[in-house]
Amino acid sequence: MRTTKKYIYDFCEGSADMRTLLGGKGANLAEMSRIGLPVPPGFIITTEACHKYWEEKDFIASIWEDVQAAVARVEKLAGKKFGASVDPLLVSVRSGAPVSMPGMMDTILNLGLNDDTVAALAKSAGDERFAYDSYRRFIQMFSDVVLGVDIVKFEERLAKARENAGVKADYQIPAGELKKLVADYKEIVKEAGREFPTDPWKQLRLAIDAVFRSWNTPRAITYRKINKIPEEYGTAVNVVTMVFGNLGDDCGTGVCFTRSPSTGENKLFGEYLINAQGEDVVAGIRTPVPIAALEKDMPEVYREFHRIAKLLEKHYRDAQDIEFTVERGKLYILQTRNGKRTAAAAVRVAVEMLHEGLIDEATAVSRVSPEQVEQLLHPQIDAKAKHDVLVKGLPASPGAAVGRVVFDADEAAERGGKGEAVVLVRPETTPDDIHGLFASQGVLTSHGGMTSHAAVVARGLGKPCVSGAEAVKIDLAAETFTVGDVTVKKDDILTLDGSSGEVILGKMALMEPKFDENFRELLATADKIAKLHVWANADTPEDAKRARDFGAKGIGLCRTEHMFMAAERIPVMEAMVVATTKEERVAQLDKLEKMQEEDFLGIFEAMQGLPVTIRLLDPPLHEFLPKIPELEKALAKRDPNGAEAKKISATMARARELHEQNPMLGFRGCRLGMIYPEIYEMQARAIFNAACKLTKRGLRIIPDIMIPLVGTEFEMKAMRELVDGVGAKIIEESGVKLEYLVGTMIELPRAALVADQLAKYAQFFSCGTNDLTQTTFGYSRDDAEGKFLAEYVQMGVFKENPFAQLDRDGVGALMEIAAAKGRSVRPDIKLGICGEHGGNPSSIAFCNKLGLNYVSCSPFRVPVARLSAALAALGAIK
Amino acid sequence: MRTTKKYIYDFCEGSADMRTLLGGKGANLAEMSRIGLPVPPGFIITTEACHKYWEEKDFIASIWEDVQAAVARVEKLAGKKFGASVDPLLVSVRSGAPVSMPGMMDTILNLGLNDDTVAALAKSAGDERFAYDSYRRFIQMFSDVVLGVDIVKFEERLAKARENAGVKADYQIPAGELKKLVADYKEIVKEAGREFPTDPWKQLRLAIDAVFRSWNTPRAITYRKINKIPEEYGTAVNVVTMVFGNLGDDCGTGVCFTRSPSTGENKLFGEYLINAQGEDVVAGIRTPVPIAALEKDMPEVYREFHRIAKLLEKHYRDAQDIEFTVERGKLYILQTRNGKRTAAAAVRVAVEMLHEGLIDEATAVSRVSPEQVEQLLHPQIDAKAKHDVLVKGLPASPGAAVGRVVFDADEAAERGGKGEAVVLVRPETTPDDIHGLFASQGVLTSHGGMTSHAAVVARGLGKPCVSGAEAVKIDLAAETFTVGDVTVKKDDILTLDGSSGEVILGKMALMEPKFDENFRELLATADKIAKLHVWANADTPEDAKRARDFGAKGIGLCRTEHMFMAAERIPVMEAMVVATTKEERVAQLDKLEKMQEEDFLGIFEAMQGLPVTIRLLDPPLHEFLPKIPELEKALAKRDPNGAEAKKISATMARARELHEQNPMLGFRGCRLGMIYPEIYEMQARAIFNAACKLTKRGLRIIPDIMIPLVGTEFEMKAMRELVDGVGAKIIEESGVKLEYLVGTMIELPRAALVADQLAKYAQFFSCGTNDLTQTTFGYSRDDAEGKFLAEYVQMGVFKENPFAQLDRDGVGALMEIAAAKGRSVRPDIKLGICGEHGGNPSSIAFCNKLGLNYVSCSPFRVPVARLSAALAALGAIK
Repeated sequence: MRTTKKYIYDFCEGSADMRTLLGGKGANLAEMSRIGLPVPPGFIITTEACHKYWEEKDFIASIWEDVQAAVARVEKLAGKKFGASVDPLLVSVRSGAPVSMPGMMDTILNLGLNDDTVAALAKSAGDERFAYDSYRRFIQMFSDVVLGVDIVKFEERLAKARENAGVKADYQIPAGELKKLVADYKEIVKEAGREFPTDPWKQLRLAIDAVFRSWNTPRAITYRKINKIPEEYGTAVNVVTMVFGNLGDDCGTGVCFTRSPSTGENKLFGEYLINAQGEDVVAGIRTPVPIAALEKDMPEVYREFHRIAKLLEKHYRDAQDIEFTVERGKLYILQTRNGKRTAAAAVRVAVEMLHEGLIDEATAVSRVSPEQVEQLLHPQIDAKAKHDVLVKGLPASPGAAVGRVVFDADEAAERGGKGEAVVLVRPETTPDDIHGLFASQGVLTSHGGMTSHAAVVARGLGKPCVSGAEAVKIDLAAETFTVGDVTVKKDDILTLDGSSGEVILGKMALMEPKFDENFRELLATADKIAKLHVWANADTPEDAKRARDFGAKGIGLCRTEHMFMAAERIPVMEAMVVATTKEERVAQLDKLEKMQEEDFLGIFEAMQGLPVTIRLLDPPLHEFLPKIPELEKALAKRDPNGAEAKKISATMARARELHEQNPMLGFRGCRLGMIYPEIYEMQARAIFNAACKLTKRGLRIIPDIMIPLVGTEFEMKAMRELVDGVGAKIIEESGVKLEYLVGTMIELPRAALVADQLAKYAQFFSCGTNDLTQTTFGYSRDDAEGKFLAEYVQMGVFKENPFAQLDRDGVGALMEIAAAKGRSVRPDIKLGICGEHGGNPSSIAFCNKLGLNYVSCSPFRVPVARLSAALAALGAIK
Repeated sequence: MRTTKKYIYDFCEGSADMRTLLGGKGANLAEMSRIGLPVPPGFIITTEACHKYWEEKDFIASIWEDVQAAVARVEKLAGKKFGASVDPLLVSVRSGAPVSMPGMMDTILNLGLNDDTVAALAKSAGDERFAYDSYRRFIQMFSDVVLGVDIVKFEERLAKARENAGVKADYQIPAGELKKLVADYKEIVKEAGREFPTDPWKQLRLAIDAVFRSWNTPRAITYRKINKIPEEYGTAVNVVTMVFGNLGDDCGTGVCFTRSPSTGENKLFGEYLINAQGEDVVAGIRTPVPIAALEKDMPEVYREFHRIAKLLEKHYRDAQDIEFTVERGKLYILQTRNGKRTAAAAVRVAVEMLHEGLIDEATAVSRVSPEQVEQLLHPQIDAKAKHDVLVKGLPASPGAAVGRVVFDADEAAERGGKGEAVVLVRPETTPDDIHGLFASQGVLTSHGGMTSHAAVVARGLGKPCVSGAEAVKIDLAAETFTVGDVTVKKDDILTLDGSSGEVILGKMALMEPKFDENFRELLATADKIAKLHVWANADTPEDAKRARDFGAKGIGLCRTEHMFMAAERIPVMEAMVVATTKEERVAQLDKLEKMQEEDFLGIFEAMQGLPVTIRLLDPPLHEFLPKIPELEKALAKRDPNGAEAKKISATMARARELHEQNPMLGFRGCRLGMIYPEIYEMQARAIFNAACKLTKRGLRIIPDIMIPLVGTEFEMKAMRELVDGVGAKIIEESGVKLEYLVGTMIELPRAALVADQLAKYAQFFSCGTNDLTQTTFGYSRDDAEGKFLAEYVQMGVFKENPFAQLDRDGVGALMEIAAAKGRSVRPDIKLGICGEHGGNPSSIAFCNKLGLNYVSCSPFRVPVARLSAALAALGAIK
């Protein structure tokens, strides 16, 4: 049955925007053809045909006449005949999916050769060696890809041919020897129980079948899974006239980037080989020379190529990665695509193209991914530092890690827990190792792939991981591993590069993040596009300065309890916590007040002109409780009837009283402020005094005071009144004008559910999504991450760890409720997010959708967030 | 300015349904008047007038002509003239709010007397002593209530009069002495700088003013606050013709219940005094005799009274509490109202009136409150047991408590925490005592009222409390207290009755709850009305039997982890928990499986024909972890290189690994089932094997298998598949037909928010509101109750402790979302609640509103829940 649907497009019929139908390669070939570039004639069988192929038995038969007709049109354009005994047309048959899946599917070159056409080719090329070399390559490739014959036999026979000829390289094998080789190749195919088809049409049909078939090989399926490529895409088949770069010194082949893929510099970067086929470049037998050499070898061709390269860049408005062949002085463009590039190159190319007027701001911003920004901001192994790679495994989880080798998860957990930098080395990891993984700087495994337990867990935890380094032989009993003749012992220092898979013995210098002019300009452009402001979480003047330098437009979370963690403050804080009377507590608070005011002076000054959101005390109370065993020891040394002993006993009793089963759900946040209002009064005084002092000096200070862990209207009202009461007095006394807001965290499900009640008193909401995730899921982060959460991610319970990427169905639903209810009462309520999700691109996209005013994240993530906010506004991340 | 609005109603103009306008007393007087009962003539000034009084200065002037006109109508009916010098009309002026506020507002009797009218009264009554006695009473009462003169002076002078006359009781004071008394009383008023008005109209005007004024006295405001009576009600003023029961032996006065207020028996229960005024009965100077005596003294009057009593009961369709006076052989009904009664009486009256056809089923059920049912079901001090009350304080929090006296909160916390029964005795409690209160059986304070810290906190915690027992003199240093000459030492045993305020030295026997035929019938009637079914939470066959006996229609929560708490099972469970390999774990699970099957056989058999919801393991993991210090001790005794020591070390390591910061948010519920499916497989096998065995024996077994702590669709799907997999195999092997459901708890906010996703696999939802309250509020119950929660209730952050009464705005909102989303996917999804709220009336009303299928509560609360479900269906509780 013939089909009426159009499954075949000649190159001249397609264009770049038909990527889905024609595949990436096909669409680009068609596009180049369309704009008059020298592309060898050819046609494309569509991805829709691929679907049909998998649905209908013998689908190829139904389009066969169309294939033949398409070949006929190619023959006309090429001026050659397929299967002809004079100057025969040879074609390549290549896969090409809508998105690139490099090396995953099949390609056959030189199709159309048989004992007859090879002779004709020898004649037309005037080069018998070339013709038989092409023939033997074709047989080998066809047998491998289409017929499934073991390739080893061919390689052995090829080696013998080199031996016979007394040469080292394949291209040196003379024609006579190649003829014998071809004969023997055919014998190998026969011995394998297969038949090598001599009919070029049969070859073509089988090759098309093989390309379609290759869409569903296990490795292709796995690749799609990892790279989240939809199953329904399918691959197209490109049938293209063969051109040859190995017909003499007026021939050649090469690949070229229009701009440097590593730095982004605007200059051709490529390699080329004179008198060679593409395969030779890939195989690495001959060393290609820089593209500049082409200018010397064939100046005309070079000028033409340079013109085309620039034209393609302009046409695609992006840096291109171009494959070309020169056949007897004539340039053919075989492929063009947007060139892959490093993060630094991506930034430079985007900014320079923007300057050149090639792209607009939105496009420039879209050219850099949040992951690339992250890469620029995290320490990497210093690329300039010389290093010997001990072994290379799979780049399973990015980032660099340095630490002492440990072979046991328990030991890693113990030493890592104490702050030592360790690297866990295991044959593979299991759920029982998670606590060790959690406490390590990184993990190296000798087995397992990109989706092994170690890889998935490490990615979930954000730890660098090199997996499947099979050359690593581990002796767990001896606590050593060897790579070849190198032995690495426990406690030796190792550096892992999870981005490249490299493992280096010893401690490598790590590179500080770069923040150059191009980067600043790109982010400034992003800011213009973004709807969300990006603020930062900062607890110290230093953090605040860094945040501002990274482009934060405010402080979204200044955690006052962190200010009490300093060594000299802890005893005062402890004494405040264990105080049993208000007087004792106030005495300690008086000491803390002076310190707090200093803190605020520094932060306010650093952020002058921008809002600073200060969260009143939300201590993990247990961290400030004196430790009972230490008190017991102290008590044992004292006269049991003395005043000292009594005091220690009282402290012990209070510490016991304040001990909590579940501190996460305990006497925290504003609960403390409700029961002991003197604490929050002290903090409010410190804030207002600092703000008023600086305002007097002419600085613009914008404090936003944030009440933590509010769950009820009563709390919000009481705390608002407390702050306003303190504020009114100090502002009046100081005689300055100071505007400030009082708001709350939305970090309890109830706060979201009664947000309308809270908004009566709260002037802003900041979604504390760390805590909100804990209570919404009922997960204690401390407990869950090291226990079941990593396994949940591996099992697929979540696509992403909900502490890293905002859970939209649950936590997000509550945020949506909070935003809607808050606005229903206070339409202009300021809405933000200050959990770690504030720096996560997907989560930022969600915040953009909710129409929040700002996201606040750690200073180091501010650039990622700025870009993400722009991409979200553009709909580029969703 | 005269007003045109009608502010005054004669008795004949009103009726019982005008309670809001006329107040309870006035509406009932009007009603009785309307149906022709002998009520003394009178009129009512409305509650609207009370509002006007508080709004407008000198409002009384504006209605004064109407008051005079009303008095004129009363004069006509009574045949007497107000202020006349012959047979003068005297009136009482009484308050009367829409709801009874006994003793809270003011009353003046005998109004209209002065030096002229008293003589006329003496003449018309033929009794000078009576007239001057009435006069001196009037002066005293008027001076106290209207003029605010200190009553002590009058009492002193009265005592002197008794002395002068050489008599013991007031009614024995002769007329001459009374005349002197009256003169001296007037002197007392003058000395106090007040003037006693002789003009009866002025008396009346001031009395009306005083009654309106009494609506807003501090004690009235406090009473309304405690009893949740709206401020806007206001009081009416009743002006009623005085009738006298003390004019001779054809006179008398009494109160009578139409049915026994303590047992509900259908027979007149009352007391009466011949030749006496109502005051005399109240004052307790003469001891009244049973109402039956009236039959002997005045048979005609008795018959008339009996007729009227039955008529009133029929008229009001409820047992009445009637006040009456007989004046010279003529019966007057002064008041009727629905009689207060004990819980037992309430049940009996309701059921018997239903049998008598007086009321319908809905009314019968509405006549008993959930609190009364609770009273019937909780141990009370045995009423028949003789006991001397040491002291009586305020009945601040109901229930009986027995324990050893402790004076220090820390000590109470420590000893109580270890399981000892202690009673905390304090002058008053403060927030710092809460941990002690929490661990005590009950609390006694010498200071503080019904809203003191101790009272509020105790009610919140459900602990009995007697507060404000001022006679208790506490010596904290000596750790003793005295009441008069009785000294109570630390560790003495005390019994508190928080329902009566009584404190008894020693251990009182407590009465087991009653569950008689009337009670059963009332609840059966309730079941007919209720829309919600009442199920019970039961973990053992014994609990299941009790639940069924109490009328549970299913088991809503059978906690399998409770089954492992038995002493002989703990070691097996511990070994299962610390197992590090699947093999070890399975070995322990095999042992547990046999025990589990036995458990289920017992419960299923007890509940045959009714559904049994079994929750798969949700252990508080830390409770099953071996204690590290104990392991350390055990380790110290072993050869450090021996196998034993190694094993202990391994257990210790595992226990440390499983330790959690926040067990409430940790590795619990189905997380365990996901990571170690073998545990849930074992439980499913035990359930299905037990169910199939009994089904084979012909019993109808209905297991509902409930997955705990589900938060994601993935978990629900996986666990459903696990259970179905085990079930299918066992059911097929056993060859029986068994229907079962698989569902989940809704106990995490996320579960509610993604209920539509869960309902794809869950066949029922049971709202686990204990945990849901914890995560919605971010409160760990263990930590919060003893720390800030009680104070929050006292501060007014919540009206009720959200762990006792469902928080509708937060937790309730999530339940609503869960119900709606669940039904959107599975319209017939079975919905229930199994938190402790399942037994709380207000929470049940909310469940009724949501249209849940059942509430499940502890067996002892099943009767309360059954009644509450009916009342909710009737809209009687909301």
